[in-house]
Amino acid sequence: MADSERFSYEGLFSKNSTVVAPGAALRPKYDFAVAYPDPETLPLDGLASSLKNALDRDGKDLAYYPNSAGLPSLRRLVAEKLGRDRNMTVGEDDVVLTSGSGEAIGMLIQALTDPGDVVLTEEFFYLGTMRQMRRFGTDVVGVKCDYEGIIPQELEATLERQAGLGKKVKYLYTIPCFQNPLGWTMTLERRKQVLEITRRHGIPVFEDDCYVDLRFEGEDVTSFHSLDDTGSVIYVGSFSKILAPGMRMGYMVAPPEVIQRAMSFKAGGGVNQFAALAIEEYLKDNMYQHIEEENRALVVKRDAMIASLGENFGSAATWLVPQGGLYVWVEMPEGTDLAAFQEQSFREGVGFYNGTMFSPEGRGANLARLCFGHPPAETVYEGVAEWARILDRNGLLRG
Amino acid sequence: MADSERFSYEGLFSKNSTVVAPGAALRPKYDFAVAYPDPETLPLDGLASSLKNALDRDGKDLAYYPNSAGLPSLRRLVAEKLGRDRNMTVGEDDVVLTSGSGEAIGMLIQALTDPGDVVLTEEFFYLGTMRQMRRFGTDVVGVKCDYEGIIPQELEATLERQAGLGKKVKYLYTIPCFQNPLGWTMTLERRKQVLEITRRHGIPVFEDDCYVDLRFEGEDVTSFHSLDDTGSVIYVGSFSKILAPGMRMGYMVAPPEVIQRAMSFKAGGGVNQFAALAIEEYLKDNMYQHIEEENRALVVKRDAMIASLGENFGSAATWLVPQGGLYVWVEMPEGTDLAAFQEQSFREGVGFYNGTMFSPEGRGANLARLCFGHPPAETVYEGVAEWARILDRNGLLRG
Repeated sequence: MADSERFSYEGLFSKNSTVVAPGAALRPKYDFAVAYPDPETLPLDGLASSLKNALDRDGKDLAYYPNSAGLPSLRRLVAEKLGRDRNMTVGEDDVVLTSGSGEAIGMLIQALTDPGDVVLTEEFFYLGTMRQMRRFGTDVVGVKCDYEGIIPQELEATLERQAGLGKKVKYLYTIPCFQNPLGWTMTLERRKQVLEITRRHGIPVFEDDCYVDLRFEGEDVTSFHSLDDTGSVIYVGSFSKILAPGMRMGYMVAPPEVIQRAMSFKAGGGVNQFAALAIEEYLKDNMYQHIEEENRALVVKRDAMIASLGENFGSAATWLVPQGGLYVWVEMPEGTDLAAFQEQSFREGVGFYNGTMFSPEGRGANLARLCFGHPPAETVYEGVAEWARILDRNGLLRG
Repeated sequence: MADSERFSYEGLFSKNSTVVAPGAALRPKYDFAVAYPDPETLPLDGLASSLKNALDRDGKDLAYYPNSAGLPSLRRLVAEKLGRDRNMTVGEDDVVLTSGSGEAIGMLIQALTDPGDVVLTEEFFYLGTMRQMRRFGTDVVGVKCDYEGIIPQELEATLERQAGLGKKVKYLYTIPCFQNPLGWTMTLERRKQVLEITRRHGIPVFEDDCYVDLRFEGEDVTSFHSLDDTGSVIYVGSFSKILAPGMRMGYMVAPPEVIQRAMSFKAGGGVNQFAALAIEEYLKDNMYQHIEEENRALVVKRDAMIASLGENFGSAATWLVPQGGLYVWVEMPEGTDLAAFQEQSFREGVGFYNGTMFSPEGRGANLARLCFGHPPAETVYEGVAEWARILDRNGLLRG
């Protein structure tokens, strides 16, 4: 067909639309870029037989359009879990199921921010959330952290700076457990200090607790949500890490007035009922046993990564040994440009994301997040060694 | 807790947010309001065993984040089906899977319209789509139809009127097969005439073919998409009607430049992989056999509704006997106010949606859509009789 015959969409697209190519993440031989969970402990047989049971009992309900907040029995299970594990006093009506926590986060971003509004985050944080914030025009400002979490004085100073600029801060987004990518868990004392400050300034805390179940050692710290009895904490969680991202099941917990606003941005109706039925039926009897089994597999991979870092990087890098989660945050000497090297490393077989991708200011080219959840432990071990060789070959390893 | 201690979200919500209460549709004793499919022919055992097979083969892929366009093998199956059934020449890369067709429709609305933009539709059309259009500020203009579809002269006149007002029309949305709620299928001649007009005016056709598989009798009419070789037709379809709404699986087919814009409004990542695996595995071997079985069940229900309308309404109403789909469009005498009576009818046990809900101009209070897909045939029969009794009791039945 001649080009002239082709229909032109010029002038038809909305101002708000951008160009996003569909597709899947690249998967190099050693994939440390994406925080996938362990595929071997995925309870496929358990999910399949649970689904069968749930369909025998409730399958005909699939012919209805699902409740827009999601399957009530799964929301109840989420509320009970959060009561037991996160000391939260919530019921099924406080919970909305979403397509991964990503949908919940997107709905809340849209409910709480207009383009140009300021939100605060940890100085490095999950790039998917940062992309969503920017997609909706948010002005993202990072707050300095140490290994105990957000530094209260820095939070206070940032809030005052924004007030001085005449800017209203809409919320503080935090990943307090196994912070992604930093790996630490915010201490109880810090949580209390942060909450005292945000409440005094009239801004809500947006707590993203996606990784909390993946604890290998050490003590849990209670949720921000449990420390607040005023309704100022909005909470999101996910089954992507304790089951699988492909199950696309996350949730938000928020006061009714926030849920009602967020629902105006829910797309595609209530969450997938077929998956929700399988998850509820499986987890109601097997949740903690499965989490334990998964963590037993993950800790071996973490140890393999830490061992290989020690053997292959020596003093050329430093890292925090995380007590859980799916990644190690590696710091190379100031001036090491991992940002420029990232694409080549993917091509040479080792995938990672450099620090600038997690920083609102684009800082951190000498930092990298290495995810250990998906490959077998031996592959994790080999891959880190291979990464050291590639870095060395390219003059980036200085011991 | 004292009210004064409660955190206030005042001033924190975005301008764009509205208040939407989560929940499920009301279900009166006789529910003719919502277009649910038949629950009895839902292939629950087939889906469960297909899922088992698919998980045995590909289950570990659930540990990855799904391709944002959806499971490639299911996109391939959709492309092949559309080739066979709708004469469309498309491949898997032209298909994006979505959470029901509702998500696809929402993405396309956002990609193609800014607030205040005009779109054209049939004079009565699916209220869920109208709500989504209005949610994003679209100015929806209905075009007059007869039993053959959109009237070409009316379309031409409407386009000229809008041009006279200095308005750019962004697209024509149509449900050409078993039009929801009108029930007719647009003739081939009309499709050709409509397409000639839209192409001449440089506007795309947005073809919603959700009901096409539910044909009980008569001949299929080929898709708008197959009549166009310029890329001016955007197509959406769904598995909600041939499987179940709870499976939340729909799709869009569009030129690459449209898909890339629409993807910027995809929320929650790629579509649920767990459900996609089950659907692909089940439908690849059982699609047509299942559709036939479902249609055998549905036609009995349609006949029960038509029989009961004849026996209980006589000359007090008129209706088109649809050759497929899930609803009958009933017209009562001019002046009958079914809009005012709808809520009371729900309360008295018979749910229906009146015409004003499907009309951009809010016309059609004397019209009603009655859906027959979900209840057993006897219940459909009884429910229509009960509706006649309720109408009569309320002075609304004039034979």
